[in-house]
Amino acid sequence: MSQTEVTAELARWIVDLRENDVPPEVRREGVRTFVNWLGCAVGGSKHETVDAALRVLESFSGTRSSTVIARTTRLDALSASLINGISSHVLDFDDTHLKTIIHPAGPVSSALLALAELRPMSSREFLTAQIIGTEVECRIGNSVYPDHYDRGWHITGTAGVFGSAAACGRAIGLGPRQMQWALGLAATQSSGLREMFGTMTKSFHPGAAARNGMMAALLAEAGFDSSEHGIEARRGWANVVSDKRDYGEILGELGRRWESALNSYKPFACGIVIHPAIDGCRKIRDEFGADRVASIDRVELATAPLVLELTGKTSPKTGLEGKFSVFHAAACALLRGDGSPEAFTDEAVNDPGLVAMRARIHVRTDAAIHEDSVSIKVFFEDGTRLEKRIDHAVGSRDNPLTDSQLDEKFIKQARSILGDDRTRILLAKAWRIGASENPAAIARATVPGVEEKSS
Amino acid sequence: MSQTEVTAELARWIVDLRENDVPPEVRREGVRTFVNWLGCAVGGSKHETVDAALRVLESFSGTRSSTVIARTTRLDALSASLINGISSHVLDFDDTHLKTIIHPAGPVSSALLALAELRPMSSREFLTAQIIGTEVECRIGNSVYPDHYDRGWHITGTAGVFGSAAACGRAIGLGPRQMQWALGLAATQSSGLREMFGTMTKSFHPGAAARNGMMAALLAEAGFDSSEHGIEARRGWANVVSDKRDYGEILGELGRRWESALNSYKPFACGIVIHPAIDGCRKIRDEFGADRVASIDRVELATAPLVLELTGKTSPKTGLEGKFSVFHAAACALLRGDGSPEAFTDEAVNDPGLVAMRARIHVRTDAAIHEDSVSIKVFFEDGTRLEKRIDHAVGSRDNPLTDSQLDEKFIKQARSILGDDRTRILLAKAWRIGASENPAAIARATVPGVEEKSS
Repeated sequence: MSQTEVTAELARWIVDLRENDVPPEVRREGVRTFVNWLGCAVGGSKHETVDAALRVLESFSGTRSSTVIARTTRLDALSASLINGISSHVLDFDDTHLKTIIHPAGPVSSALLALAELRPMSSREFLTAQIIGTEVECRIGNSVYPDHYDRGWHITGTAGVFGSAAACGRAIGLGPRQMQWALGLAATQSSGLREMFGTMTKSFHPGAAARNGMMAALLAEAGFDSSEHGIEARRGWANVVSDKRDYGEILGELGRRWESALNSYKPFACGIVIHPAIDGCRKIRDEFGADRVASIDRVELATAPLVLELTGKTSPKTGLEGKFSVFHAAACALLRGDGSPEAFTDEAVNDPGLVAMRARIHVRTDAAIHEDSVSIKVFFEDGTRLEKRIDHAVGSRDNPLTDSQLDEKFIKQARSILGDDRTRILLAKAWRIGASENPAAIARATVPGVEEKSS
Repeated sequence: MSQTEVTAELARWIVDLRENDVPPEVRREGVRTFVNWLGCAVGGSKHETVDAALRVLESFSGTRSSTVIARTTRLDALSASLINGISSHVLDFDDTHLKTIIHPAGPVSSALLALAELRPMSSREFLTAQIIGTEVECRIGNSVYPDHYDRGWHITGTAGVFGSAAACGRAIGLGPRQMQWALGLAATQSSGLREMFGTMTKSFHPGAAARNGMMAALLAEAGFDSSEHGIEARRGWANVVSDKRDYGEILGELGRRWESALNSYKPFACGIVIHPAIDGCRKIRDEFGADRVASIDRVELATAPLVLELTGKTSPKTGLEGKFSVFHAAACALLRGDGSPEAFTDEAVNDPGLVAMRARIHVRTDAAIHEDSVSIKVFFEDGTRLEKRIDHAVGSRDNPLTDSQLDEKFIKQARSILGDDRTRILLAKAWRIGASENPAAIARATVPGVEEKSS
């Protein structure tokens, strides 16, 4: 395949795709992606990270067209997309494209929902644009993964901006040349470092990708031109940010192979790589009981190498840091049976019992162990031992959350913020994205105290 | 020197530097930097690139605290910094730190002046913050140049965001830890690709760097935390974006060696690397006359290698592309004696006489030739020939623009936009930055029809 027209061919696909050419199962996964994203954005909406960003953005907001999820403040669409991207990611509870560890909905759905209140679009158009956006970011991510990620780029930010630009550009009806410019403007704003993991700035990345991608689409619409080869040029994005570049991942089987349909949803509020450990430790607790696990002397985890690389913090001090400690996560799963957002609070990581338990947990990595698997050996104080193997952790592609597990996850996150009734109404609306439900009405239904009729 | 505390040590210097410790000659160069930047921002203020960006940003602007240079529209400080960064760079007429080809004032002065209308600061504080910002971006640029630039990064964007964050952070009084966060937030937003050269998006880079750096400082002030080792961490900025990393360039002789005082100012409205060719061709025209140069059969330029790498376009179609064609620039200097913004219009690059002349220009690169030098051989139709050598092009460090040449450049750019009287008043105000002149009053004095008393 020609490597000289990657941006042009991708732009043409984004512009030309007919809604009816998106297979039903792909649309269905798109709905699940949206439901999961919305629950996470509600769940994260009161986080201190969101408060801090809002303190800055409130006075810089223009026409307040758009909802800040689950808050009474309204902001312009660009600023709202930034905040909602932060909310949806701050609990590390969002979706994951497992091939690249991209969290697809954060950059894309955060931008699109904010945009939908500025530029009205049908529910069906919304879903198509969201699917296109997540498809584009995952394909662009595939083209440079793993080298790009290994180098230190937070791929949700760097690839996400393309997804937002594609989704927003599609939704506002850019032509093919404008779409090339939008992708070029996305390429030149692509950013986000893994060094920020464990700080508030990590969740800034999907927010910034949402805002910058929307800005790219709006600038292109206004005639602000850019390179028409932003992805593949000799000094284009892929060459600058990665040693690996496989453009077949971007253009191959477009419209037939759907990366967006490979999305997965986390049952636990932390990086996907420690889900097998949490899943296994919870099962051990379920089987043997709280009293028995309290008498554990030593735990040995055998995991994929990425587990220690990403979550090797042995002494986390804050809840955010706790998400990057397989030791804390395993200890909390054993002692509390918990992998929810409450497992990753400042309180939890400083709990003396958990601190004592995490010191008893030892990790050995093994390149032969798949990233959705773990092997756990437990040694009790009385000399007995047991072994537990997880082949496919809950939430992985081979063991995905069911719709009703997605409901449970949504309700658990939203109930304390919206109350039971509003949570139930919002959840029902969210499942109707792509069908009957006006996206702008969904956005407004996240705000406590705002009454809105279903459209 | 320890490589583990680069961000911390730099942050402490930014916060602790006393105004009186900035040497007078460094302050003087800071004033010249500001005057040159302001003239360029006025000169570029009516460009179609600015119009296009403004069409998008107007409805997204919050509290309209800040002046858009030389326009009646006002915007919030973040949006104004973005537009003013575009205006100051769009004619490629701005300043250059020759070691790195960073254009220092675009990201820094654009942010600071917009901020000064939101958060009042004295003229002296403004100048100190500007000097700190340009110092920081040039030092960070030095630490990764040339590998980072060779890889394809537009260093004015990627390093500029640190300069803006440092300047804005200093101006709003961040403490040392907040300043580390601001630098981390800058690191994670660092972006901009050379692939965009020749399009409107090139000038988006200093604008985005200005806006993103200001956002970094404001977020840090609001308690939005970030890595405290954003520059030097294993997966921090420098390791991710460059194979070369020399932290001695960042921390060495801080406060004694001043990179900001090495700034230079362009006499011609295009990339600095083709200035020697323009300077030489103009001198040939001056010496031999317009009639004689019209009979040129062939021109041979011997230049530094970067000249062809950056400006090797043989058939530019637009004025913007013309800035990246040493062939066009040399032809225009020979036939029109012109290197001003008028030399780089769509009209000029499509002028049949210039098109014919540029086909007669041939370039040979030689690594032994310094970037401020050129050797020119001219062959006339009658068989005669001449040779011209430029050792230090006008505007280079060894042949800098004088204050009165800066005045001429300012007046030439501003007069057609502001008229003679207002241009003269504005220029006088600009030279008083750092002394008596309120920065916010300078910003307002760029706007036609707005009357403002000097403070």
